Amino acid sequence: MFYFAQKTWENMLRAIVNAYLICYNIHKETKIKWFYQTNKEKESLMKAATYVSAGNLQLIDQPKPGIKNPTDAIVRVLKTTICGTDLHILGGDVPACKEGTILGHEGIGIVEEIGDAVTNFKVGDKVIISCVTACNTCYYCKRSLPSHCEDGGWILGHLINGTQAEYVHIPHADGSLYHAPESVDDEALVMLSDILPTSYEIGVLPSHVKPGDNVCIVGAGPIGLAALLTVQFFSPATIIMVDLSESRLEAAKKFGATHTICSSDIAEIKAFINEVTDGRGVDISMECVGYPATFDVCQNVISVGGHIANVGVHGKPVSFNLDELWIKNITLNTGLVNANTTEMLLNVLKSGKIDATKLITHHFKLSEVEKAYDVFKHAGENNALKVIIENDISE
Amino acid sequence: MFYFAQKTWENMLRAIVNAYLICYNIHKETKIKWFYQTNKEKESLMKAATYVSAGNLQLIDQPKPGIKNPTDAIVRVLKTTICGTDLHILGGDVPACKEGTILGHEGIGIVEEIGDAVTNFKVGDKVIISCVTACNTCYYCKRSLPSHCEDGGWILGHLINGTQAEYVHIPHADGSLYHAPESVDDEALVMLSDILPTSYEIGVLPSHVKPGDNVCIVGAGPIGLAALLTVQFFSPATIIMVDLSESRLEAAKKFGATHTICSSDIAEIKAFINEVTDGRGVDISMECVGYPATFDVCQNVISVGGHIANVGVHGKPVSFNLDELWIKNITLNTGLVNANTTEMLLNVLKSGKIDATKLITHHFKLSEVEKAYDVFKHAGENNALKVIIENDISE
Repeated sequence: MFYFAQKTWENMLRAIVNAYLICYNIHKETKIKWFYQTNKEKESLMKAATYVSAGNLQLIDQPKPGIKNPTDAIVRVLKTTICGTDLHILGGDVPACKEGTILGHEGIGIVEEIGDAVTNFKVGDKVIISCVTACNTCYYCKRSLPSHCEDGGWILGHLINGTQAEYVHIPHADGSLYHAPESVDDEALVMLSDILPTSYEIGVLPSHVKPGDNVCIVGAGPIGLAALLTVQFFSPATIIMVDLSESRLEAAKKFGATHTICSSDIAEIKAFINEVTDGRGVDISMECVGYPATFDVCQNVISVGGHIANVGVHGKPVSFNLDELWIKNITLNTGLVNANTTEMLLNVLKSGKIDATKLITHHFKLSEVEKAYDVFKHAGENNALKVIIENDISE
Repeated sequence: MFYFAQKTWENMLRAIVNAYLICYNIHKETKIKWFYQTNKEKESLMKAATYVSAGNLQLIDQPKPGIKNPTDAIVRVLKTTICGTDLHILGGDVPACKEGTILGHEGIGIVEEIGDAVTNFKVGDKVIISCVTACNTCYYCKRSLPSHCEDGGWILGHLINGTQAEYVHIPHADGSLYHAPESVDDEALVMLSDILPTSYEIGVLPSHVKPGDNVCIVGAGPIGLAALLTVQFFSPATIIMVDLSESRLEAAKKFGATHTICSSDIAEIKAFINEVTDGRGVDISMECVGYPATFDVCQNVISVGGHIANVGVHGKPVSFNLDELWIKNITLNTGLVNANTTEMLLNVLKSGKIDATKLITHHFKLSEVEKAYDVFKHAGENNALKVIIENDISE
């Protein structure tokens, strides 16, 4: 009985000790787990300029992206910039872009992580991020229209998270990144993500500008000025810039405009252009704004046999004067950049033929991105063109 | 005194005789002049289909034309035809065309008289009359835009007398006539004056049609059907014709259309075209009518990267959906024919590759031109396409 009683006490004691040990271990493990998990969570967050709701952009914590598909890359952003389109999204005008999306589709960075199927890039490579994601295999990519890639196109900072963050997830890295040479200024390279190829591919190339041509560019904002830079590849005789801001037109003169007119009065602009062009109108007019009124200028100043390049993003239909234009043998193009001239333009930058940094007026850190948006939003009063945002958070 | 008196009588008698003789001669001369002048006037008149006033075309006497400049030719018309534009003029819609103008800008004939500076043609040559007069020396002619020739362009039956007459005055003959080979049917050659080059140069060529493309032609009238004939040079996969006339669509099928739809309902047409094109829309849409509604069909069925060719003559502006199209990378062209493919198309006719006489449904004599207009004016109920008018008055 005693033995039984002694054994019982011993067993009870053992059970208590065991229970204590189990509890202690569970507690320890939980504590460790909690400690590590917290650290891991901390590690997997990053700061990102986020479209929180219409009119509301905030630099908030977002999960750091990781590889999802073997064709992906994760890029640590070095420098990025803000586009007019970002303001459109922020204004609530782009319903396809959902609240919570990180904005931005331009930038340069360092490859941080790479999927197994990526062949052109390795971790540590310095890259230019194209605003257009190209799978290189779909119907449109095969037709040199990656702007309409069936698994890409313009998705960065639109349908997926974008570049105004510490890190960005790049699908189809082989089709969407370009090697960034050390010989070209970092900030000039940022201009290769969107603004230079857009102005060149949608404004200049389809216009078939020839030496001696008369060109009119409506809108002296960043895109119009980029068109002004790239149209000079083909030595037009005159480049007439039309805008409502004297300061932008002053910039245009420094960029190579031969004539400027600060007006929105079609009759006045037409009379001015007729005077410059022996009454014929311009061979090429480029719409670089995106309003019916600016399109109207373009169609009113075009010469017989001329070309209208519509670079602007439009929110409304325009009245197209086919009653006057049908007989004038004109051509017209519209479009979203395909970014298939990025490498050609990179060669231009390498050669020093144009200085793309001219387009940059302001510099901010990623930690002050909200201020950068504020300045860019009021570009007129701030004399702002492109603003560079440097990632000062992650290294 | 007697002597004096005798001399006086003699002198008086002589004076009377002389006066009589003078009067007689004057009378004779006047009579002869009158006789010859009347005959000459009779010789220098011809019958011509004349735009007398809005809605009123008459076959009336008009002066037979003569050489005015050394670069002119006078052509005796063999066959001519009526264009939709002639109906526009007759409707009073073309104020530049003054009452009293002989209509018509198409036809073939025999060179009757030639200016000293004409080098390519001689009296007796059989010629195709181009609807476009080209001086070959002005700013626009030198830029391959004779449609806007500073001393020509579309002037026949518009700003100067046209071809629906016994004879026609052709300025700048070297640039405006083509040798008519005996090997090609006369009536097929009449289609080279306007309808074939217009559909080809404004519809087909600027569209850069490729084998395998999907094409939509809106309007199965003569120009739309001519576009249907010439677009087949480039072997598109599908040619979808849109019209409101079942009989024209039946003709279109015989001409090579792969699909037809008899509708003006955009949603219905779009659904039909999406079904045919895997939901992508057509690579090329050609507007061959000239109304906002038909242009609207074209802009609604165009695919990403597509081309809209506006062949129709418009009287009103159109609403151009740049809000939807800016992103679709489309191109567009408009224009008046330059007729600089006439010889190329003549080669096509010689080769038998297309049968242009298919476009001809009715035959009339010049003496019954008013009836021809009546039939052409009600083309729908008469199943009329091109009507040939033969000069039965002068030989």
